[in-house]
Amino acid sequence: MENELTKLLRPHAVAVVGASPREGSVAGTILRNLQACGFAGDIYPVNPKYETVQGFSCYPSISQLPDMTDLAILAINRNLVLQAVEACGERGIRNLVIITAGFKEAGAEGERLEESLRDLIARYDLNVVGPNCMGIIHRSEGVKLNASFSRWFLTGGGIGFISQSGSLGETLLETFEDAGLGVSTFINLGNRAGLTENDFLRQLADDPQCRAIFLYLESFAEPNEFRRILERINQDKPVVVLKAGRTEAGAAAVASHTGSLASPDAIVDAFLRQCGALRVTTIDEALSALRVLQKGILPAGNRVVILTNAGGAGIIAADACERLGIDVPALSEDVRAKLREFLPPEAGYGNPVDMIATAGSNDYERALETTLASVDAAIVIFRPPMVYHEPVENVADGILRVLAKMPDKPVLVCTLSRSGMVTPLVERLQEEWIPSYVMPETAVSAVDVLCRVKALEVAAQQADEAMSEPYSMAAAHRILGQAVAEGRTGLTFGEGAEILSSYGLSVCPFAYLKSLEEGVCFLKQASGPIVLKIDSPKLLHRFEFNAVITDIEANGDLVEAYLKLRETIDSLHMPDARILAQKMLTGRELIIGLDRDPSFGPAIMFGIGGTLVEALRDVSFGVSPISRSEAETMIRSIRAFPLLEAFRGQPAVDLEPLIDIITKLSQLAVDCPSVAELDLNPVIATPDGTYAVDILFRIDPTNPAR
Amino acid sequence: MENELTKLLRPHAVAVVGASPREGSVAGTILRNLQACGFAGDIYPVNPKYETVQGFSCYPSISQLPDMTDLAILAINRNLVLQAVEACGERGIRNLVIITAGFKEAGAEGERLEESLRDLIARYDLNVVGPNCMGIIHRSEGVKLNASFSRWFLTGGGIGFISQSGSLGETLLETFEDAGLGVSTFINLGNRAGLTENDFLRQLADDPQCRAIFLYLESFAEPNEFRRILERINQDKPVVVLKAGRTEAGAAAVASHTGSLASPDAIVDAFLRQCGALRVTTIDEALSALRVLQKGILPAGNRVVILTNAGGAGIIAADACERLGIDVPALSEDVRAKLREFLPPEAGYGNPVDMIATAGSNDYERALETTLASVDAAIVIFRPPMVYHEPVENVADGILRVLAKMPDKPVLVCTLSRSGMVTPLVERLQEEWIPSYVMPETAVSAVDVLCRVKALEVAAQQADEAMSEPYSMAAAHRILGQAVAEGRTGLTFGEGAEILSSYGLSVCPFAYLKSLEEGVCFLKQASGPIVLKIDSPKLLHRFEFNAVITDIEANGDLVEAYLKLRETIDSLHMPDARILAQKMLTGRELIIGLDRDPSFGPAIMFGIGGTLVEALRDVSFGVSPISRSEAETMIRSIRAFPLLEAFRGQPAVDLEPLIDIITKLSQLAVDCPSVAELDLNPVIATPDGTYAVDILFRIDPTNPAR
Repeated sequence: MENELTKLLRPHAVAVVGASPREGSVAGTILRNLQACGFAGDIYPVNPKYETVQGFSCYPSISQLPDMTDLAILAINRNLVLQAVEACGERGIRNLVIITAGFKEAGAEGERLEESLRDLIARYDLNVVGPNCMGIIHRSEGVKLNASFSRWFLTGGGIGFISQSGSLGETLLETFEDAGLGVSTFINLGNRAGLTENDFLRQLADDPQCRAIFLYLESFAEPNEFRRILERINQDKPVVVLKAGRTEAGAAAVASHTGSLASPDAIVDAFLRQCGALRVTTIDEALSALRVLQKGILPAGNRVVILTNAGGAGIIAADACERLGIDVPALSEDVRAKLREFLPPEAGYGNPVDMIATAGSNDYERALETTLASVDAAIVIFRPPMVYHEPVENVADGILRVLAKMPDKPVLVCTLSRSGMVTPLVERLQEEWIPSYVMPETAVSAVDVLCRVKALEVAAQQADEAMSEPYSMAAAHRILGQAVAEGRTGLTFGEGAEILSSYGLSVCPFAYLKSLEEGVCFLKQASGPIVLKIDSPKLLHRFEFNAVITDIEANGDLVEAYLKLRETIDSLHMPDARILAQKMLTGRELIIGLDRDPSFGPAIMFGIGGTLVEALRDVSFGVSPISRSEAETMIRSIRAFPLLEAFRGQPAVDLEPLIDIITKLSQLAVDCPSVAELDLNPVIATPDGTYAVDILFRIDPTNPAR
Repeated sequence: MENELTKLLRPHAVAVVGASPREGSVAGTILRNLQACGFAGDIYPVNPKYETVQGFSCYPSISQLPDMTDLAILAINRNLVLQAVEACGERGIRNLVIITAGFKEAGAEGERLEESLRDLIARYDLNVVGPNCMGIIHRSEGVKLNASFSRWFLTGGGIGFISQSGSLGETLLETFEDAGLGVSTFINLGNRAGLTENDFLRQLADDPQCRAIFLYLESFAEPNEFRRILERINQDKPVVVLKAGRTEAGAAAVASHTGSLASPDAIVDAFLRQCGALRVTTIDEALSALRVLQKGILPAGNRVVILTNAGGAGIIAADACERLGIDVPALSEDVRAKLREFLPPEAGYGNPVDMIATAGSNDYERALETTLASVDAAIVIFRPPMVYHEPVENVADGILRVLAKMPDKPVLVCTLSRSGMVTPLVERLQEEWIPSYVMPETAVSAVDVLCRVKALEVAAQQADEAMSEPYSMAAAHRILGQAVAEGRTGLTFGEGAEILSSYGLSVCPFAYLKSLEEGVCFLKQASGPIVLKIDSPKLLHRFEFNAVITDIEANGDLVEAYLKLRETIDSLHMPDARILAQKMLTGRELIIGLDRDPSFGPAIMFGIGGTLVEALRDVSFGVSPISRSEAETMIRSIRAFPLLEAFRGQPAVDLEPLIDIITKLSQLAVDCPSVAELDLNPVIATPDGTYAVDILFRIDPTNPAR
C-alpha cells in the first residue's frame, strides 16, 4: 500500500479524463495546473471529442492510454464515472483521483453510485482519492504535481495536510504561503470511497521530509486504526487536528450519569488527546500552531524569558503567559548582573527584560545569550524604534548566532509591525523557519502550542499497557451471558460486585438480608453505621424511590428502616427485589462510569461525586484502551482536582486505586460488549481503601455477552 | 475643560519646541509630520540655534512666539522641560504635549521633576498630555493634526483611541488602516501628569463623530470618575478596553475568605463590566471588536443565520457559534419553502443554508432577504467558486440592498480568501462599514462582540439605584466607632448582627447563653436542632478551634456541648468569649463578602458555600456601588448557578434576598470606611427566608468609623 501511495504522489504519467478546451471546465483547469506547476512526467488528456487539448495530444479512451500511465484524474459526468473506473482497472491504472461530485453527498442515487464504486475499487484493488474532491498536490525534491483544480500551488516544506473538505482546502492552500508555512503534500479526501486519512497518515509517517501533519476532519473513517497510526507517529512528528462538525447528543435515552454527562465533543477531545494529537478549534489556531511546529524544536519545559524594546508589549506578553500558565520566572541576581554590564540603568531587569528603545542588535544578542541558558524558550520583541541606525536584519543574525550555540531552545520573534521596515528581519528568520509574529499575544500562543505538543510527546512516551495484572473475565461472561439470555437490562448489586471483584476492584462490604435477624447481625459486625438499600436489576435510580436509608447505628433504627424498605418493595411491585446492607463508608466521593460512543466505542468518565459536579459537568473522559498514565491525566484534568489533593487537613486521595478502576472498566468494556453503560456512583476513597459503593449496570441484550 | 480639549485637538497654530534639522531628531520628525499630514494652521519651530528648520522660520524662544499659538509640543532635554512649561504658562499657551521622557518612569530624580511639573500645571491651569508620550493625532472634517513622532497617520472615522503606552500606540496606528478601522483621534497619555483618560473620555463622549472608543490602559487614573463617565457614555457608544498589567495580589495578610479569593484581575473584570465597557484581552480581539462596532448596529438578540456556498466553512461557523452560545436556529418550514423556490435541490436547507458553489449574487440576495427577517443577524460566507461569471461585488450590492430594507440587522461577510479575487467585494462592503473576514470563526467572534455589547447596553439601561429602601447607619456608626476607639480589629457576632439588621438584612435567630439553663430554654423554644459557637471578636476562624458544635437536639447533647465549649474558652484564654446559640438552619449555603481593593475600593464577592467552591474559586465580584441588576448579574455569573435554580426536586432559590444582601453590603462598605473585610459565611437560603448564619467583620481601626 505504501509504495502505491508513493506512486500516487510521484506518478510518471498522468491522464486527465474529461479534459476539454471549454472555458471554466474543471478537467481543463486541472490539465493547466499540471502543466503550470512544472510536472516533469507525461500528461495525457482523454476525450473522444478532441484531437488536442491545450497543445497536448488527446486520447480517445482510457483503454488506449500508454502503458506508463500510473495516475488518472477523472473529472467527468457522474454517470460516466463507474465505466471510466472500470476501464482504468482493466488498463492497469491503479491510482485514481475522482473529482466528480454527485455521490453519497447527493441523495439516494448518488449513494447507489458510490456503493458500486466501492465494489469496483475492491475488485481492481485501486487507490482512489475522492469522489467529490478537489484533488491532490505534492511538491518535494524532484516532484511537482498539482493534480487539482486549486488556484494555488504549494511552496514545498515540512508539512503534510489532509483535508476532508474541499472548499476549506482551497482557502487553506491560499493561506499557507501567506502564513509562511512550507507544505509539501495536500490531499483533499472528499467522500473517502477508497483512501482515507489513515492511508495518507501512514504515507506521511514514513515520509522523511514530513515534519508535521495537519488534518481537517468532519468525521473519522476508522477511529481505532487512526489511533494506532497516531500512536506510532506522535513521538516523531506532531499531528494537529481541526475537527469540525459537533453533532448533537444522540437522542437515545440514557440510564446512567455517565451517559447523560458524555457529550460527543468531550469524547472527541479525549480521543485526540489519547492519540497524542494537538486539537485546535479554529483555522487561524491551526496555521499558527503549524508555523511554530515546522521548525521541529520543542522546549524542555514552560519557562520563558521575554526580551523587549517596548515596555507595553512586554507587559501584554507577560499577561498572556500568565493566562496560559506559561512561567515567566524572575531572573537570578547573577543573570541580572550580567545584563547590567551592557544595558543602561533605565532598562527593566525583571522578566520581561525591558531593554528600552536604545537597544541595538548587539544588546539583543548578548541579552538573549545571557538569559536563554536559564529558561526553556524566549520571546524576543523587537520593533525598530524611530531612531535606529542598523539594518534590522542584524537582530535576526544575532538571534541565529545564539541559536547555533543553543539549538534545542525555541526562540520566537515579535515585531509589533507588519510593515516593510521589518521585512528584512522577518525574511532572514523565515529562512531558518524561525517564526515571527506581529502581536505579542500571538507569539505567546505559539509558545503555548510548543508546550502542549511537548506535553503530548511526554505523555506518549509514558503510555504503558492498560492491564498489567492478570484477571479473569470468566465471571463477567457467565453473569452477563445469563442476563442476556434472560433478556434483562440490568444486574443485581451482587452480580455487579462479583464482576468488579473478578477484575480486581474493591467493592464496599455488603450482604443481602433475608431477615431482620440477619440485619441485626450485620449491624453488630459492622461496628459502625450501615446503609440499607433496595436492590433489583429493574431499579436503576434508588434515590428516586426512597430505596436507600443511611446512617443506621442503633437496632431501633435498623428495625424501622428494614420495615420501611419492605413496604416500599411491596408498593413498587418488585417481588424479586431484595434488601442490601452495606457498611457506611466516609471519605471523598467520586463517580466513575462507562458509556459507549457510536464512533469511538467505550468511553470512561471520571468526576467528583455530588450535585455541584453534576451541575458544573466537571468530568473528564477517556476512550478505551486507557493506559495508566492516560487515566492519571483524566483524573488530574477535572477542575475540582485540588479537592483530591491534601485539602483542609485531609490527606491527598491515593490516585492508584482510581487509576485501577478507570483502566479496568476500560478493559471490561472491551471484554464485554453487552455492557451498554455502567456507573460506579459513588466510589468512596477512604483512608483504608477505595471502594465501589453503588453499582449500576445497563445491559444491552442485543449485544453478545462476550 | 471640554472647550480647552477641543482646542488641543483643533489648534490654530502649533509650536514645536526643540525642532532641529538633525537626522533622527524627535522634534524634527514631529515638525515633518505636522507638515506632511496637511495641518492647515501655522507651524512654529522653536530653537535658539537655527534661523529656519525644514523651511519654517524658527523662533528663538517660547516667549517670542506669536499670540495665536495655542498648542506647544515639547521635545527637548528633560532638564529644560520645567523651564519651557513655565514659559508656555507665562506666554498664555495652555495646551501642551510633552514628548520628553525621563520623568516618573525613570527613578527618583524623574519623580521629583514630575512633581514640579504637576505644580506648574496647577499653577498655570494647563492642559498637558504626557510627559513621556509619543503625542496626539486627530483627523476629522476640517482638521488634520499629526502632533506625534508616529510614522503613521490616521484615515479618519468613527473611532477614538486613548493609549497609555506609546510603543503599542504606534503598532496600533500601523494596524488600524490594515484592519479597515476608521480612527479620528489618537491620544498617547504617557505619564498622565496632567490630562488622563478621563479627560479625553469626556471629550470623546461629546464628539458627535465618535461612534466607538478604544482604551489601552495599564492602570486607571481615577476609577470612580472613570465609572461615572462611562455610565454616561455606554448607552450611546461602545467602549472597548484592553487592560494590561495584571499585578500580583497584594502582600497584605487577609483574614476573610472574600479577601483570599479576590484577585485584582477579577475585580478589574467586575469593574469594567459594571462600567458597561467591553473588556478584551488581546490586541487582535480589540481590533476585531472595533471593526464590527464602528458600523454602530447592534443585534436585538443572538439568533443568527449562516448562508454559505462552501459547506465546510458553514460547519466551522456553526461550531464556533455553538462554542460562544450564539443561537443558529433551524429555519421555519415556511422560510425553507421560499428558499426552495430558487435554490437547487442539492442545497442544504438547514442553518447553515448551504447554497453550494452554483449560488450567484441573486441567490445570495434572495436568500438573505428570505432568512434575515426571522433572525437577529446574518453571516454571509461567499468565496468565489472556480467557475463564477459575475463580478464579485454584485454579492456586496445584493447584501446592501437587503440592508437598506432591514437596516437594524448586522450582516457580516466571510470570504475565505484575502486574495485579489475578493478585493472588489471587500472594498464595496468597506465603503458602507460592513466588515468582512477571511475566516468563518473570526466572523463569528465579531457577532459575539455585537451580542456582548448589546447585553452591556441592556444592562446599563436596567441599572437602577442600589438602595431603594430607607435604612439607618446609626447603629453601624455607633458600634464601629466604639470598636475603633477601643482599637479592636473584630466585632462580636451580636454587634455584627445588629449592624446587618439595621441595614434590613435577616440574621439567623440567636442568643448568648449566660448559663446552661438558658441553653435548655433556647433548645426548647427552637423546636429543632441548634448550634453552639464560641463568640469573641478575637476569634476569626471558629472551625479551626473546634469552636462550633452542630446538630444539638437532646438536652444531654446540649450539656455535653456547653461544657466542652466552656473548656475550649478556658484553654484559649479568651475571658471575654461567650457562648452563642443559634437555630440550625437547613437550606442552600452561600458566601457573600466584602473586601477593599486599593484602586477600586469596596468589592463584594458572591459564591456558593462549601469546599468545592473554594477549590474552584467559583466566585463573582462587583465593585461598589452595585445596582440590583448588577447584583443579579453577579449571582447568575458563577458557574455553579444551576445549583440555585430548581434542582433535584428543590425549588429555585429566591434571588431577591441575595440581591438585597449584595447591594446592602456594598452600601455598608461606602458608609463605613473602617470595615476592612466582611464575610457572611454561610448565608443560608431556606424556604422560609434567607439568613446570615455566621458573620465576620474585620475592622481597620486606622480608618474612620464613618
